[in-house]
Amino acid sequence: MQRKSFNGMQCPIARSLDRVGEWWSILILRDAFYGLTRFDEFEKSLDIAPNMLTRRLTALVEEGLLERHQYSERPPRYEYRLTPRGRDFRPVLFALLAWGNQHFAPEGESVVLLDAETGERAEPVLVDAKTGKRITSTSHVVGAGPAAGEAILRRIEQTVERRAKQQATI
Amino acid sequence: MQRKSFNGMQCPIARSLDRVGEWWSILILRDAFYGLTRFDEFEKSLDIAPNMLTRRLTALVEEGLLERHQYSERPPRYEYRLTPRGRDFRPVLFALLAWGNQHFAPEGESVVLLDAETGERAEPVLVDAKTGKRITSTSHVVGAGPAAGEAILRRIEQTVERRAKQQATI
Repeated sequence: MQRKSFNGMQCPIARSLDRVGEWWSILILRDAFYGLTRFDEFEKSLDIAPNMLTRRLTALVEEGLLERHQYSERPPRYEYRLTPRGRDFRPVLFALLAWGNQHFAPEGESVVLLDAETGERAEPVLVDAKTGKRITSTSHVVGAGPAAGEAILRRIEQTVERRAKQQATI
Repeated sequence: MQRKSFNGMQCPIARSLDRVGEWWSILILRDAFYGLTRFDEFEKSLDIAPNMLTRRLTALVEEGLLERHQYSERPPRYEYRLTPRGRDFRPVLFALLAWGNQHFAPEGESVVLLDAETGERAEPVLVDAKTGKRITSTSHVVGAGPAAGEAILRRIEQTVERRAKQQATI
């Protein structure tokens, strides 16, 4: 891998990206949500080189996103299942799905989200669980959490200054 | 880039990943949401090699996520601003933020989302905009959209079969 690790960064987005590793990992997680569990299933679905798939699956197990279970002794065969941490990645996938449908589906939507009860088309949006308010560009802002270090504090301070300046010039 | 393009795939998640490019691009978008616009600001924030930053910024402009504006003639200087398509990426970032806070912040949260009006800590969750129902592992399922091709249809059919089998064995 050419990219450096973002793990030392305090930003939760950088850390998340560090754990998922790269595109293949996200598509493997997607397939795991589709119910795929076996090496050959992932291989066929993703059309990925076996050594690359092995590497990505191993990384996802090490990061605690997938669990490996042996389902056959002779020959030894394993399946990969989402852990609770892996399952919690679902909102990221759905946000990517919504964005893809919105901007990169000129021929119409291929995959949509349906209400399991009614079968009606759902439209995933982010809201604040506490107030129910939809999260838009103006409704919410990023702020420092209790563990914010110097770098994060400075970044957030600068953001507030930038916003104030931008508003002042309008 | 070693990875292949996912652009031919019909899956909206794969297409989204294809457009964002890789981690650096997501962190550049994150910084753009923080209000950064200039090359040197991104460079300093990300500690990224200039040639790599140029490449990622150019790609983000080509994909329609950022717009380049000249703000100085002599010397020629440009700034990069989020387009509407870039702004629509926000829910992905917030979903990554929430997941990072949930799983990779052992020392406590460094960055949080705040209600802009009240300053109260917000908890971003996905809901269906139509019904208000929270999107959980059982509330919603992935289904074929109007433009779904063979590959997507087969995938979704197999998912339904797998689920039925899993439920039957419980």
